[in-house]
Amino acid sequence: MLHGHNVIGFDTTKKGTETFQSFSTLQGEILPELFHIATDEEIKAAIAKAVAAFDIYSKTSFQQRATFLEAIAEEILLIGDPLLERTNLETGLPLARLTGERDRTMNQLKLFAALLREGSWADAVIDTALPDRKPLPRSDLRRILQPVGPVVVFAASNFPFAFSTAGGDTASALASGCPVIVKAHSSHAGTNEFMASAIQAAAKKTGMPDGVFSSLNGEGATLGQKLALEPAIKAIGFTGSYRAGMALYATVTQKRKEPIPLYAEMSSINPVVLLPETLAARTSETAAAIAGSMTLGVGQFCTNPGLLFVIKSRTTDAFTESLVAALSSAASGTMLNKAICKSYYNDRNKTAQAKGVTQLYSGEDMSSSFKASPALLSVSATDFMADVSLQDEVFGPCSMLVICDDKTQLEAALKTLHGQLTGSVFGNTEELTAYTSTIDILQQKVGRLIFNNVPTGVEVCHAMVHGGPFPSTTDARTTSVGTEAIRRFVRPVCYQDCPQQLLPVYLQNENEAGIMRKVNGAFTREPIV
Amino acid sequence: MLHGHNVIGFDTTKKGTETFQSFSTLQGEILPELFHIATDEEIKAAIAKAVAAFDIYSKTSFQQRATFLEAIAEEILLIGDPLLERTNLETGLPLARLTGERDRTMNQLKLFAALLREGSWADAVIDTALPDRKPLPRSDLRRILQPVGPVVVFAASNFPFAFSTAGGDTASALASGCPVIVKAHSSHAGTNEFMASAIQAAAKKTGMPDGVFSSLNGEGATLGQKLALEPAIKAIGFTGSYRAGMALYATVTQKRKEPIPLYAEMSSINPVVLLPETLAARTSETAAAIAGSMTLGVGQFCTNPGLLFVIKSRTTDAFTESLVAALSSAASGTMLNKAICKSYYNDRNKTAQAKGVTQLYSGEDMSSSFKASPALLSVSATDFMADVSLQDEVFGPCSMLVICDDKTQLEAALKTLHGQLTGSVFGNTEELTAYTSTIDILQQKVGRLIFNNVPTGVEVCHAMVHGGPFPSTTDARTTSVGTEAIRRFVRPVCYQDCPQQLLPVYLQNENEAGIMRKVNGAFTREPIV
Repeated sequence: MLHGHNVIGFDTTKKGTETFQSFSTLQGEILPELFHIATDEEIKAAIAKAVAAFDIYSKTSFQQRATFLEAIAEEILLIGDPLLERTNLETGLPLARLTGERDRTMNQLKLFAALLREGSWADAVIDTALPDRKPLPRSDLRRILQPVGPVVVFAASNFPFAFSTAGGDTASALASGCPVIVKAHSSHAGTNEFMASAIQAAAKKTGMPDGVFSSLNGEGATLGQKLALEPAIKAIGFTGSYRAGMALYATVTQKRKEPIPLYAEMSSINPVVLLPETLAARTSETAAAIAGSMTLGVGQFCTNPGLLFVIKSRTTDAFTESLVAALSSAASGTMLNKAICKSYYNDRNKTAQAKGVTQLYSGEDMSSSFKASPALLSVSATDFMADVSLQDEVFGPCSMLVICDDKTQLEAALKTLHGQLTGSVFGNTEELTAYTSTIDILQQKVGRLIFNNVPTGVEVCHAMVHGGPFPSTTDARTTSVGTEAIRRFVRPVCYQDCPQQLLPVYLQNENEAGIMRKVNGAFTREPIV
Repeated sequence: MLHGHNVIGFDTTKKGTETFQSFSTLQGEILPELFHIATDEEIKAAIAKAVAAFDIYSKTSFQQRATFLEAIAEEILLIGDPLLERTNLETGLPLARLTGERDRTMNQLKLFAALLREGSWADAVIDTALPDRKPLPRSDLRRILQPVGPVVVFAASNFPFAFSTAGGDTASALASGCPVIVKAHSSHAGTNEFMASAIQAAAKKTGMPDGVFSSLNGEGATLGQKLALEPAIKAIGFTGSYRAGMALYATVTQKRKEPIPLYAEMSSINPVVLLPETLAARTSETAAAIAGSMTLGVGQFCTNPGLLFVIKSRTTDAFTESLVAALSSAASGTMLNKAICKSYYNDRNKTAQAKGVTQLYSGEDMSSSFKASPALLSVSATDFMADVSLQDEVFGPCSMLVICDDKTQLEAALKTLHGQLTGSVFGNTEELTAYTSTIDILQQKVGRLIFNNVPTGVEVCHAMVHGGPFPSTTDARTTSVGTEAIRRFVRPVCYQDCPQQLLPVYLQNENEAGIMRKVNGAFTREPIV
């Protein structure tokens, strides 16, 4: 049962008269529910509650926050099929995919809960006093990561669970001790309402402060811009288009008095380098893997393989034929929303018409039914290097083969690449070793370097980096997937000669939680005696 | 022997015809040596060399970098007295202070060398493959911190060694694997030349690549702006005024195509809260400690205590008298340069004339001899909260007493504070406990929270945080002092299913360096078998 309201801490309100509706690309029609756009008064209420909640929530124990995150996972499961059915309608994504994504989203919450229970993430570092040191004594100095303050999360359209209302940004910000205000994605506003209600219920059940979470409805850029300008907001997590991300970056850096961290994940075309021996040995398997990665989720993944680098050889044609065959037999899929579908055909046509670009395969235009068919383009490395616009992301199942004369030209082409979330290399070990310099170039461009695999499929774990140099993100220093994502919403604070009972518990001598700490330069879980 | 040249990797050049000279506030005269301002050609040469050096230097072992840093420390010591004498002339800082600062600077280099030799700083995190996991297998994922690319360091005037050419920014950037280009501070250009030559010599002796270090001369903002706009520069370390820092921030965020991390440490007035019981019990000792901190280094420290919060009581007058007595007997000191001295008297006079501000003590104007005399101002908390300009930094030995009616007003005043490097609280344990809510407010404003001590004196160690919320820095997520400073110049990179021999050595199964790693969620120094 959807109400179309905003979630303001423990309240639900719909004070605004402006409303919008979701359009179902699956059904080709507008869904009946009206969602009320947050008024300025509602925005201010959410901010005020987040500020008040921060004083309490930032001092909760890691165990308390873990219980909260686990409760969110439980509440999500409790929504049951109505959630999956609504999201299916709103996004066109099939139920099997959504069931898997729901699992992933619950697992993300549980992973952060486990990280909190273990506790070492907070990076406790202690240098004990040296009162007799000459020429000057040393004070007792203890450092730990502390939450920065209220965080705004922009929900993404392409992962309505995992990168949206209760997704990785929200989970990591809540884990860090920061209250969260979600700017709901208007193309799955019903999904958002279900998820926001689940978080609200979990917060109430686990005794979290009113305001630890809010979710606001808006259409277009207005709400997001307003939230980004609020002085009380201390960090922003965003996943979306390059254009929207850079508009937000301009707002944050030029219109705010106080700079804050903006983690905008935007545009990546995920180069895949196919080394010749391996391509010759495994031509059809490689083509099948690439086609599968290109069309997975109708190509609507941040890690979609947009560029395929090959060195021209007798295998090139065979590979191209295999890939075209695989793509032409791939099913077309319904896209997330109208705007994405329109952009897909526009962008792929524009790219296909660029100088030197050949269309190797182009599925029929199915935009009238909001479906995307795959496409494969081809360009010489020379033409690729000459036209930077060929690096513009085509969001959907379209990739471009970049044909290089030799290793030297391959390296030259890779050097012109913008920053990327991922870079993949297919090659056997001898070949990879011979191409070490090539791989080094690729490493400098990416957050994740993948060997003999496609870029789609982002494991949620400790070692993951889902981030990378600009423009894949605005801040390559961290990741939006995996436990390290928590670092985005904290800053180190040092306590000098602080009495034991006033220290954060994780810095006290006892180390009752038994976390790993660095004490006088050495790692230990022992108490300080 | 000074030459006035720029250091461009292993070359020294002075191609420009524009020159400048240092002015000695100590001698009241211009020093004879001419320093040649870097030409655009020289800037491009330094950039090109840094880019080329990065490919090599970023792949050096931690041991190689440690040897380089240790060699820099040795070369600095080898310069001997001519360095100290020149710096004394250029900065007015006494020889004893400079000798101590030189030690600190060498120790910083050695501390980073030790960090590198130990190796765990690189944050190696490994999740091994789970080929049999259902529904999907897990790849082998390994993450480590990698250097971002060439870094520009802006030398600061107030620590001609420790925050300048071979200071903490340079040491941490070189430790991380990034080449460094220093924008020399024009008020100690001779000091810079000595230091740059030492780094150049150490780079040659330890087999580092040409371009791992350069140092360029400039006056005013021109050179810094040019460097900040270079696409090849991937991070910037800056210590200086709010105005210069924010000009740099505007350049980096608005004029560069690619956003990069800017670590600008700017303005902090370091509030000190003096709780009533403790102030009553230790009136004169506290006054002496505050006076000493205010006048240390002629008040030219980022951590100078600019605001003293007291709750009005019968002790207030006695404390004020003691503090005034201590300040009036403090020796006046020569300031770093003409501009700083002029600003000091201007800013203290301007603040003294603000609404509600009383001048409790004002040493005579000694600007004709470039010396600063201390000053103490006073304001009610009500007037303080009403005038945000009272938070403008007065760089020099001037502080302001903020007199609060009670704890409630103290907390209200602290809530209006801008971000700070430090906040100090003087109080006995019972008093501190009673003021927990006050301390919590202060904690949210600062990078370092100090108990019963003055803010001056920044220990170089693992637990130090010399950073804080805006405007004390543009990026509160890290520190410019202590080992954690290395994190500013790295980003995480994840290797997926990478063959062992192509992995960075610290991620290989053997773990031959024996660093602490997080393997499948558990900390260990063991190899993976």
